[in-house]
Amino acid sequence: MRWSQSFIPTLKEEPSDAEVPSHRLMLRAGLIRQLMAGAYTYLPLGYRALRKAEAIVREEMDRAGAVEIHMPAIQPIELFERTGRIHSFGNVLIHFDVARRGQKVRLALGPTHEEVITDLISRHVSSYRQLPFTLYQIQTKFRNEERPRFGILRTSEFLMKDAYSFSASVEQLDQAYQAMYDAYCRIFSRCGLEYVPVEAESGPIGGDASHEFMVPAPNGEDRILRDTKSGYAANIERAVTGRRPSPVPAEAPADAPPMKSLDTPGTTSIEQVSKLLKCKPHQMIKTLIYLAINEFRGGRPQPVAVLIRGDHEANENKIRRVLGAESLELADEETIQKVTGAPVGFAGPVGIRCPVIVDHDIPLMEKAVVGANAADAHLVGVRIGRDWLPSTVGELQAVSFKIEGNADDRTTFDLRNAAPGDPSPKGDGTLELVHGIEVGHVFKLGAKYSVSLAATFVDEKEQSHPIIMGCYGIGVNRILAGLVETRHDADGIIWPISVAPYEVVVVPLNVQDPPVMELAERYYRELQDAGVDVLLDDRDLRAGAKFKDADLVGFPLRLVIGGKGLQDGVVELKWRDQPEAEKVPVADAVAAVRRQVAERQAALKAV
Amino acid sequence: MRWSQSFIPTLKEEPSDAEVPSHRLMLRAGLIRQLMAGAYTYLPLGYRALRKAEAIVREEMDRAGAVEIHMPAIQPIELFERTGRIHSFGNVLIHFDVARRGQKVRLALGPTHEEVITDLISRHVSSYRQLPFTLYQIQTKFRNEERPRFGILRTSEFLMKDAYSFSASVEQLDQAYQAMYDAYCRIFSRCGLEYVPVEAESGPIGGDASHEFMVPAPNGEDRILRDTKSGYAANIERAVTGRRPSPVPAEAPADAPPMKSLDTPGTTSIEQVSKLLKCKPHQMIKTLIYLAINEFRGGRPQPVAVLIRGDHEANENKIRRVLGAESLELADEETIQKVTGAPVGFAGPVGIRCPVIVDHDIPLMEKAVVGANAADAHLVGVRIGRDWLPSTVGELQAVSFKIEGNADDRTTFDLRNAAPGDPSPKGDGTLELVHGIEVGHVFKLGAKYSVSLAATFVDEKEQSHPIIMGCYGIGVNRILAGLVETRHDADGIIWPISVAPYEVVVVPLNVQDPPVMELAERYYRELQDAGVDVLLDDRDLRAGAKFKDADLVGFPLRLVIGGKGLQDGVVELKWRDQPEAEKVPVADAVAAVRRQVAERQAALKAV
Repeated sequence: MRWSQSFIPTLKEEPSDAEVPSHRLMLRAGLIRQLMAGAYTYLPLGYRALRKAEAIVREEMDRAGAVEIHMPAIQPIELFERTGRIHSFGNVLIHFDVARRGQKVRLALGPTHEEVITDLISRHVSSYRQLPFTLYQIQTKFRNEERPRFGILRTSEFLMKDAYSFSASVEQLDQAYQAMYDAYCRIFSRCGLEYVPVEAESGPIGGDASHEFMVPAPNGEDRILRDTKSGYAANIERAVTGRRPSPVPAEAPADAPPMKSLDTPGTTSIEQVSKLLKCKPHQMIKTLIYLAINEFRGGRPQPVAVLIRGDHEANENKIRRVLGAESLELADEETIQKVTGAPVGFAGPVGIRCPVIVDHDIPLMEKAVVGANAADAHLVGVRIGRDWLPSTVGELQAVSFKIEGNADDRTTFDLRNAAPGDPSPKGDGTLELVHGIEVGHVFKLGAKYSVSLAATFVDEKEQSHPIIMGCYGIGVNRILAGLVETRHDADGIIWPISVAPYEVVVVPLNVQDPPVMELAERYYRELQDAGVDVLLDDRDLRAGAKFKDADLVGFPLRLVIGGKGLQDGVVELKWRDQPEAEKVPVADAVAAVRRQVAERQAALKAV
Repeated sequence: MRWSQSFIPTLKEEPSDAEVPSHRLMLRAGLIRQLMAGAYTYLPLGYRALRKAEAIVREEMDRAGAVEIHMPAIQPIELFERTGRIHSFGNVLIHFDVARRGQKVRLALGPTHEEVITDLISRHVSSYRQLPFTLYQIQTKFRNEERPRFGILRTSEFLMKDAYSFSASVEQLDQAYQAMYDAYCRIFSRCGLEYVPVEAESGPIGGDASHEFMVPAPNGEDRILRDTKSGYAANIERAVTGRRPSPVPAEAPADAPPMKSLDTPGTTSIEQVSKLLKCKPHQMIKTLIYLAINEFRGGRPQPVAVLIRGDHEANENKIRRVLGAESLELADEETIQKVTGAPVGFAGPVGIRCPVIVDHDIPLMEKAVVGANAADAHLVGVRIGRDWLPSTVGELQAVSFKIEGNADDRTTFDLRNAAPGDPSPKGDGTLELVHGIEVGHVFKLGAKYSVSLAATFVDEKEQSHPIIMGCYGIGVNRILAGLVETRHDADGIIWPISVAPYEVVVVPLNVQDPPVMELAERYYRELQDAGVDVLLDDRDLRAGAKFKDADLVGFPLRLVIGGKGLQDGVVELKWRDQPEAEKVPVADAVAAVRRQVAERQAALKAV
């Protein structure tokens, strides 16, 4: 391709509305243009990069034995009603009615395709002999992003590779999951991404086990805790800490002053109380009243008080798992009034009328500020063991908690999000916080969708079971965003050769100089014939402007022709990620480019 | 790929709801499955064929110098308001509101992308030096089909290649149009389609010149008139006839009986009147009252009576052009009452109070049945020249008709759809009617969108002009539907090798027989290594069932291994479109397959 015949509107100025490097550089390099909030057109260079990433994804899916199909974006809303995702997606699911021959037809735009594919498979699979298999597609997804931002990192429409595995056993699911996990590692490596697979909660999509593939980047919206010593990494919702149960003291020192009630009128948040009482959040205890629903108890919501240090974040998934609960929600005002005897905002452990579970860190606080279970009051100098106690194992078991131990013992739990400085759950390292961009996610779904959509198979004994599913997503656009976020310098993008819009840019210094242009044209033709992906910058601009644009777009290799070099019989090869150019005799340039490009490509493929 | 590891649910039974061969065979061959009315999932084989067609489209677009981009499906409705297409698309345009942070956002799903791309270009092109260029995308389009039908022929969501050319002059537009026209010919030839480029109206998309690429097929929804002698072909809306103006007789034979008024209470349609009066539609005249709007007359609607033989179809585009009108619509009741003095359904030429234009066929009717311009009455035995006369050239010119001639002359026009048997406009042939499937369309748009969306450039003299545009579409899915409609037999589909899901199917007769399976596996591996696109039918089924499936799917070449042939040291090569198989020595099979496949592929490429 010739630069003059493509459409590459590079910008000299910084776009005013771009907050992050990928957004800023993709606009400046002429890769994308915004159509409206959350919607971008991919210009020729941007679309070339996207298609290269897509091709790598496809190759590795095929290599992993997944089979490609293509499902419609428009789907009947009824499928989302059957799985309940119309509620769990909420405002994110785009759905609307159309009129056909006077009838209303209710449609949704697929945010993912679990419903459609499970419905399809339910009609075609009936026996274990047909299992296992994995299908995938690379298709446009739609989500109503409340806050589209950061360029192509968060948009309402994006290209997703979504794969779905169908298995007759957990072992088959494990194999399919591992095959996808391994394929993802190859994909991101081949794309030149620095990535970390992290343990993750499965979130509203449901299921039991999952990993996210994260690109560590300062502007990533996800928070990861990792311990580079052991390699442990998990997102903040999932990360477990290496903390141990803390012993609950039986009593306080004899000289400890008694707790005291202070007036805190209208002061209900940690922030407000710490300001009023001049204490730090880490000296306070948050008492959160939850309602836990355990199906085997008939679904009756059970109130429970959860105690977390004031500067920490409660983790509802951890709490739910400790309680062995189906679901968990913050208690309503009525329940809070009932168990605390006070309005919302003044709960505390002293005298509370429901089971109490505490985070590992709570007994480590010598004394604490807590709600007084009375309106407009907090207690200070409160000591565990003297003024209050967590529930015993027996009391907890009685309300369905799945813990073992002596009925009279009292213990502590991991109930909060991990925080930097926490001990790692693996080895003796320490967790550190990094931000990341999620580029992929693998889930063990289990039977969530096959049960709601009646996708079953019969086993060797003619017994019917729901098909065991996994689902596996990659945000193809985010591969680009992740690359640009992590591979750029002050001059522009630094593409890996596998995903670069062009491998090589040929830059004649002066297009008005016939010998220069003839050589440039010859190189362009010979490189094309050799299968090198090459752009000829045939614009009649001064060399400086062309170099600036080449660096801004970030072509991996620049071949410069003209000037004093050409008089000396050499041309210049410069890699975008190397500081120095190499001078090559005119006759050797094509061979040198071919060899160096092939080496770089091979290095990324050999993973 | 191994058959057992793909997902190819072939059907023995005829699907009950499939009306046309492409729908029926694509379901039976396991290429597609319906998700809902107008929405199909492409299963592995169907998607492979679709992607091969897509790749051919992309190659030829690139070869023609068009540059690929990718625009969002979701678009701001405001752009459709600016071009007025929100009205011209009507219920076909899918649009809806979403809520973002409490704000309503009004969105549409792109039925095509004239608005988005013109808006984009308006921001980046300002000078003639940047023109001409052509951009394209291969992207999913959405249209609310009132009557989705015929499988993938008419769906609400489809893959379209849409290209847009931007030019500074009509000559540049003509060149871009011709480049696309030629590329389309290559694309459809390479896909193995029998196609006809036909002249077409540009329809609601607007503009001046267009061709449709049609695949003649009995189930096609489009009607084409063509004259194979001269090569003339046009769709029915566009086809002109070779008829000439007919002389309007000055008077009737002296012995002709006078016209007579008959009571026809409540009888307003041609069908009803012909039944009541026991005459044939071709003995009747339809008098249609239109309102023509000519901008240069200040936009005042001008009523005009248009006379067509009762068995013919009026052609509003032809009428509009004869009138030189901006737009044309059937007159409202009030206007009809005013010019005929009667309610709707009884208009006729005798005594009507507006200009009258007549089709060429009208003076050829010796006498006719016409409306009486009086409620519940028709006139019979009406003779042109005696009982009524069409308007003179002068009268017509006075109301802005663009015709030349003596002011006192009366003439006739081509005002109706062409019909089989009409003389061809080229040479001395006759028009015949064929049905067709539209697979592509090229349009000269002119300045329609660049004017509404302010996409302008300045010329050498710093004068500003709207950019001159063309747009060019291919329905990629319809390439498949067109192929299956026209290339099948009683056993199944007959794919051309360029678009077939696999080029070759290797069929071991008995997978339980180790020597058979070893050879099959070897062929499979060697063919794959040689770059042949091969499917191994490794299913443990009897040979007859495998042959039936191979014929149903329609793989171009079948390589059969086993049985008596293998004992004799031969295997069998059978082309799907040849009646006889060829026996080939075991050692020569791979070379024979490679050579024959390469020959077939080359034959389709050499266009």
